[in-house]
Amino acid sequence: MNRRDLAQAITLIESTRPEDRDKANAIFESLTSPKKPTFRIGVSGVPGAGKSTFIDAFGRLLIEKGHKVAVLAIDPSSPLTHGSILADKTRMQRLSSSPDAFIRPTPSGGILGGVAARTREVTYLCESAGYDIILIETVGVGQSETEIYDLTDAVLLLIPPAAGDELQGLKKGIVEIADILLINKADGELEALCNQAYQVYAGALKLTPPRSPFWSPPLHKISSLEGRGLEDVWNDLEHYRAASQKSGDWERRRKQQRVKWFEDEVREELWRVFKENYGEYIEKEHKSPVHAARDLVRKNFTSPLRGRGRPIGSGEGEI
Amino acid sequence: MNRRDLAQAITLIESTRPEDRDKANAIFESLTSPKKPTFRIGVSGVPGAGKSTFIDAFGRLLIEKGHKVAVLAIDPSSPLTHGSILADKTRMQRLSSSPDAFIRPTPSGGILGGVAARTREVTYLCESAGYDIILIETVGVGQSETEIYDLTDAVLLLIPPAAGDELQGLKKGIVEIADILLINKADGELEALCNQAYQVYAGALKLTPPRSPFWSPPLHKISSLEGRGLEDVWNDLEHYRAASQKSGDWERRRKQQRVKWFEDEVREELWRVFKENYGEYIEKEHKSPVHAARDLVRKNFTSPLRGRGRPIGSGEGEI
Repeated sequence: MNRRDLAQAITLIESTRPEDRDKANAIFESLTSPKKPTFRIGVSGVPGAGKSTFIDAFGRLLIEKGHKVAVLAIDPSSPLTHGSILADKTRMQRLSSSPDAFIRPTPSGGILGGVAARTREVTYLCESAGYDIILIETVGVGQSETEIYDLTDAVLLLIPPAAGDELQGLKKGIVEIADILLINKADGELEALCNQAYQVYAGALKLTPPRSPFWSPPLHKISSLEGRGLEDVWNDLEHYRAASQKSGDWERRRKQQRVKWFEDEVREELWRVFKENYGEYIEKEHKSPVHAARDLVRKNFTSPLRGRGRPIGSGEGEI
Repeated sequence: MNRRDLAQAITLIESTRPEDRDKANAIFESLTSPKKPTFRIGVSGVPGAGKSTFIDAFGRLLIEKGHKVAVLAIDPSSPLTHGSILADKTRMQRLSSSPDAFIRPTPSGGILGGVAARTREVTYLCESAGYDIILIETVGVGQSETEIYDLTDAVLLLIPPAAGDELQGLKKGIVEIADILLINKADGELEALCNQAYQVYAGALKLTPPRSPFWSPPLHKISSLEGRGLEDVWNDLEHYRAASQKSGDWERRRKQQRVKWFEDEVREELWRVFKENYGEYIEKEHKSPVHAARDLVRKNFTSPLRGRGRPIGSGEGEI
């Protein structure tokens, strides 16, 4: 699959038109497993942490090493704002000019089944198309923390050079899921602030119980602008992968992700079936929405299934 | 319902045990509609904006005016961290000592159906128990922006006195859903920084297209610590309510929320029915989770419903 076909397939996946969904499903059926082992890497950090500059430089390093790199994004912006601030080609100009890079701008607007569910499909599609390293960019706040963990093998946290105080509030959650922490922009005038941030995060790391018995998240100062420290980041990632695979955690996490994916798809499909059959009840005035919902679902969806034998379809679509 | 009964009922709602859920449903069936008109107010702001101090002071002002005030919270922390940083009694000491206040700490850990779904139930419960003003506290980032809009009649945004730069990234979404903006901590040494923040947000407001034709969000400097500006906040809220009700937006938003509530409940109940019947397929290895999920749901859930008459249960649980 070339880049143009890949881009078109993703457009089908992101589409809300049912006929596009059918076409996307057909493409999925035809996919073969990736030929090379793949590595899904989350790149998280608050706005201003320098994620684009990092990905632009780090992606090129990976390509020099013989990899093919796809860049995706999950954007936790509210549906009200339709903000699309991430994974922007124009902000990764040097990387996007490489034939071994594929950069997909963040979809704007509502996506059927949520951005995370579609990002899983797009990841799989890119991997089938030969991209063995997938960089998934996100703002590390709220919901997206969990999502990035659910979509990747490892998470890099980029930290801007700033006094620790204003970051304290947002730090805890993402530090807990980060596998490697990077103080970015360690160049020029910002060097001193970087050292300050380094101290704060080194302290925070000491207080954070390690998430896994096989890995203590390292903390580095890097300069994406000058390309300093990027080799260390890749070395750390390779060490992380080896340790994670040896411990069995790698496969456990990937399995968990496949289970979550299946769950999300089932939830969406059930909702679609409900809407097709009982759409008229959604806009109604229910005195007690909890009671009305449970009643309607229990009485119409439970009984036909009880006491049956093997459910229809259970032998298909799986190996 | 006294405060102790109310607290116990909420514990049942937040419980993940099915028998507690049945008891919670029974309580819901017995509830009567609130006697007084209710007002659901969101209090949003980044960590450090002074939300607790504001609620402590503002809640007491409302009680002086003859209202009964309940304080709830939605916490977007990742399920990994189980962070419970909001609506903490110990941080609202003066308010919590009032017999007309009810403060519910944020539930920690996973809640069946999501925190937003349960917050709706708790809101309704508090309103039935005579609390006519519900303050819902949240950190205004990512997902929680949409949730707070879906749970309230109006949203207050608390802004800490800080230079605009570091807030720029997080500002846009929440400014768009805020109905009243408050620069907090306009006291002592922070006064100058407050003026700076005021300029930045006044500028941002000018550039933000108004969400509704009937209301331009005002911007105030307040001091929760010294109690300055709180009367203005309540005046604004009363004006907002009058304008919103006159335009019909108030009822539209409440209706939208009931629809969303019903939707969320249906989704959860469908998922529960699926798990009860096909639980064994969730942990399985599906080659294509998308295909497997759609296949399993379509073949087992669609056909028994098609071509039926009026669905069972549709006449119950609603008015």
